[in-house]
Amino acid sequence: MAKGHIFNFSVAFADTDLQGIMYHGRYIEVAERARTNWSKDILIPDGDFGFIIRELNIKYKHPLRLNDNFVVETKIIEVGNAFMTVEQKIVKDNLICAIMNITIAYLGSDMRPKAIPESVIKALS
Amino acid sequence: MAKGHIFNFSVAFADTDLQGIMYHGRYIEVAERARTNWSKDILIPDGDFGFIIRELNIKYKHPLRLNDNFVVETKIIEVGNAFMTVEQKIVKDNLICAIMNITIAYLGSDMRPKAIPESVIKALS
Amino acid sequence: MAKGHIFNFSVAFADTDLQGIMYHGRYIEVAERARTNWSKDILIPDGDFGFIIRELNIKYKHPLRLNDNFVVETKIIEVGNAFMTVEQKIVKDNLICAIMNITIAYLGSDMRPKAIPESVIKALS
Amino acid sequence: MAKGHIFNFSVAFADTDLQGIMYHGRYIEVAERARTNWSKDILIPDGDFGFIIRELNIKYKHPLRLNDNFVVETKIIEVGNAFMTVEQKIVKDNLICAIMNITIAYLGSDMRPKAIPESVIKALS
Repeated sequence: MAKGHIFNFSVAFADTDLQGIMYHGRYIEVAERARTNWSKDILIPDGDFGFIIRELNIKYKHPLRLNDNFVVETKIIEVGNAFMTVEQKIVKDNLICAIMNITIAYLGSDMRPKAIPESVIKALS
Repeated sequence: MAKGHIFNFSVAFADTDLQGIMYHGRYIEVAERARTNWSKDILIPDGDFGFIIRELNIKYKHPLRLNDNFVVETKIIEVGNAFMTVEQKIVKDNLICAIMNITIAYLGSDMRPKAIPESVIKALS
Repeated sequence: MAKGHIFNFSVAFADTDLQGIMYHGRYIEVAERARTNWSKDILIPDGDFGFIIRELNIKYKHPLRLNDNFVVETKIIEVGNAFMTVEQKIVKDNLICAIMNITIAYLGSDMRPKAIPESVIKALS
Repeated sequence: MAKGHIFNFSVAFADTDLQGIMYHGRYIEVAERARTNWSKDILIPDGDFGFIIRELNIKYKHPLRLNDNFVVETKIIEVGNAFMTVEQKIVKDNLICAIMNITIAYLGSDMRPKAIPESVIKALS
């Protein structure tokens, strides 16, 4: 569990750009794909908007290329009243290629911050 | 009007792949961007699902490269009872780079085909 | 082998649009991801441009939603001198959600059609 | 010039997700589209790899919805020896919807940091 949730992926043409490496914006998508897989059994109570990204920081360490296999490691850093912070690493053969920190708020139906429901917190841990 | 609706765009890094040309899947997105601009004043009546793509055919004629400026020409070929067909051309300096034919159905709230509302047909023409 | 190459995938937020279903353009990307996985051991001889999509047809049968698991089935329909045609199906629980036919040309360094090298044909079959 | 380079864009279906707002990863793409437009006359000297993103921070302030028109404001914050930092704002009707800070390194053919060539610095300012 030290590494958190593990998600396997590999680089396709759609992920590359003319520099021959994975496009920097694609890391954000792949990280979301990993979080969605990680949280797929969580039910957002009816009426609530649910989670929304508030801030995202990514450091790019090493480029990825076509057909590179890698994993996304996802773990919760902090769960607050109406938000959580998550760390995600993109790792290829034990080499950290990118590291992200994401602050995610929980919103009610009025699009305003709301305490994360107990049922959701339980499902997250 | 012979050319239909005109939408200007240009190729960014996000649109390219490692072959150095616009990724074939991006043409589909750019064409949708043009159709959305074209139909932005159309209101889908409450409750209806609205339009959904049923079939799409695209022929790629000439590749596009970073910073290429091009236009998307959109015109209706046929409006049926519960569908329409649209033709879209990707044109750079009078050279047709791609040509698409798209069949679009209209769905009600039950996700089943439904006659396109009069107000929508009016707004389209 | 009747089903050809099988690639597993599932729908993330990035793949959806505001209609709540997988965006029609994403099917094209996912199909490429499957083909890239299928052909990852094929080496394009130095200097050649390699494969390029000439024509693509897709029929959308049933929408896909967040977290839906599906497979992409890829099989070659025909290998010509300088092109091949491939069929791909998007299948969820034995339900065909989309079916694609793709014509792919082989280009030399001058971006003109060229006979597919023997080594590539061997690797494909 | 106080606002830097201005790039106009609007939200299409491709940019939205099932929450009905612009997908958080799309802001990164749109920002790159603005930077590419801004720097389209800059020539990377033969052999150099060119610019690569090292770090990116984005704060999301207000969601964007289908057909929202907005601008991307791009300005250089600092030009160092082998890197630059850029600030980009996504602004709709004078409301800042997102703000990004991006650190971009310059790489030589060996993928290692290299002083930004004089000709490139001149073209940037």
